[in-house]
Amino acid sequence: MNDATRTNPRALPMPDLRDSFPGPFPASTYADDIERHATRWLRTFPLVGSERALSALSQITGQGVARTFPAAERDDLFLCADLFLWLTAFDDAHGEATGARDPARLARTISDCVHLIAGHDEPPGGPSAFAAALGDLLARFRERATPLQYLRLTAHLRDNLFGILWEAHHFNRPDHVTMPDYRAMRGHTVFVRTVIATAEVVLGYELTEPERSLEPVRELQTAVADLAGWINDLASYAKETAHDGPGTLNLLSLLMRQHDCDLEEAFRLASRMCERRAAVAAARIAELSAGEGPLSDHAQALKSIASSYVWHIHHSRYQIQGLSFGSDPASPA
Amino acid sequence: MNDATRTNPRALPMPDLRDSFPGPFPASTYADDIERHATRWLRTFPLVGSERALSALSQITGQGVARTFPAAERDDLFLCADLFLWLTAFDDAHGEATGARDPARLARTISDCVHLIAGHDEPPGGPSAFAAALGDLLARFRERATPLQYLRLTAHLRDNLFGILWEAHHFNRPDHVTMPDYRAMRGHTVFVRTVIATAEVVLGYELTEPERSLEPVRELQTAVADLAGWINDLASYAKETAHDGPGTLNLLSLLMRQHDCDLEEAFRLASRMCERRAAVAAARIAELSAGEGPLSDHAQALKSIASSYVWHIHHSRYQIQGLSFGSDPASPA
Repeated sequence: MNDATRTNPRALPMPDLRDSFPGPFPASTYADDIERHATRWLRTFPLVGSERALSALSQITGQGVARTFPAAERDDLFLCADLFLWLTAFDDAHGEATGARDPARLARTISDCVHLIAGHDEPPGGPSAFAAALGDLLARFRERATPLQYLRLTAHLRDNLFGILWEAHHFNRPDHVTMPDYRAMRGHTVFVRTVIATAEVVLGYELTEPERSLEPVRELQTAVADLAGWINDLASYAKETAHDGPGTLNLLSLLMRQHDCDLEEAFRLASRMCERRAAVAAARIAELSAGEGPLSDHAQALKSIASSYVWHIHHSRYQIQGLSFGSDPASPA
Repeated sequence: MNDATRTNPRALPMPDLRDSFPGPFPASTYADDIERHATRWLRTFPLVGSERALSALSQITGQGVARTFPAAERDDLFLCADLFLWLTAFDDAHGEATGARDPARLARTISDCVHLIAGHDEPPGGPSAFAAALGDLLARFRERATPLQYLRLTAHLRDNLFGILWEAHHFNRPDHVTMPDYRAMRGHTVFVRTVIATAEVVLGYELTEPERSLEPVRELQTAVADLAGWINDLASYAKETAHDGPGTLNLLSLLMRQHDCDLEEAFRLASRMCERRAAVAAARIAELSAGEGPLSDHAQALKSIASSYVWHIHHSRYQIQGLSFGSDPASPA
């Protein structure tokens, strides 16, 4: 990667995760089915403005979710895909720059969602595609999950919505956001803990509360959450640079401020951070996979979840003309 | 009450809830113990700025919680009291006018709380009295509650925090808030659904999921939530008028805008709304109390919870010199 950086001044160092997540990453054979289903679901609930965006989002969701839970059943994959579609489309439509322009309006939109998540009927803001789609998702999860699983999932959904609102407040004014602030919220804004919460629902295992509190489990989840957020930051920084200009609330900007360094050095620092978290995650996955039962199932679920985020870096959604990355030959892309 | 209105131009019509909640409202014999405990807890965790405010908050909490759960054990009453103290003190310190001045700062403060509620350790913002007190509360609830009860309680805590942030956004600019918006959020900002969630923890019953979904249960809870928020609005409007001037985000202001009426007419309309919700609650309480088991326990819990809010109207916290209310002779105050 250093070679690439030297020969191409626009190449930026990306993490080398081959030691921790060597790939190839198994994918469900239902990937195309998921994509077709996603397209249908987004036509039933028009959450995405353009046909082109709908198609791109359905495609990446089909491929991504097929790698997140390669062994899951078809209907469960559809459910996870729809959850991911909803969160991503909500963030695109109401969060980020739009939310930053009018956080009070975003708070009202979120209040509709909180109302539904809290188990009440008609949202106060009246019918909307996002409310209808969320109602559909919640009903399907209620059907599929145990009461505990459902409460855990909806807790994470609340945290996602709060994270989107928190981000809107700091999107253009990140000066008050410290690295610990950012790290604490990033797992919510990248939705990874919500994806982790769906694993037990769709893969049919359940951790006991003492298992859930074990330090190796907690550390594994935090390492995967950090990794997911940070590699997403690395990948989307490039994408955002190519389009509207990058937001200033991301790992790279925080590192540039903290270390008073340039973008390339921030990419290098962030890449090392990703590699270290990936190593922690991989070690915990190996440790927890040694036995049998729910702990091992959970470790394997976290492995495929982490892999799907690693895979995302190389997806075309983030392949920007004129800005190249150090490549990861292990990636299927 | 109409007589009082005629003879005193400053008397405002208040709801007559004697038919639905006739009183006297039973109170735990531990009221003074709760007050002493509250005072100690607020010295351990300094959430309240002045000794006078600490004393007033401890006193109303002792008396209020003693009426909320008159049959509960001492330690459970302490736990509920501390929860109520924390929420009230957080709202006073960070919400309302303070939150309205800098919602982004409030979002960061809330992110510390969300971090703890989501089960993580040290909050990113570093140690604070509110974080330490919340950590203490969560540990005690985790000890006392079943996993389901704990998840339900923490879901409501998240909704309270979101409600406080939502309110901060509209505190001085309520023009975009409709009556359905307000009604949907008011149950969160008055903390009543969180209090309802503690009932199963401290009174030792548990509804099944089908029981929880029964229409009479849902309607009872919504009626009590509405009632709690609205009578709090009526009582605190007077208090706020006497001090800093009333905020513009409350039931009275919304009614004045909606009906293009004066304050007295808004009080009259709001009082009728309270009386109607109280009648619905009382009918559902009678219906659900007819049998035995958790449904009856829940109905009785809702009865005492509603009674504690009714009782609060007449507490000295809201007795303002120079502004009189139509009195409710059934009240113990």
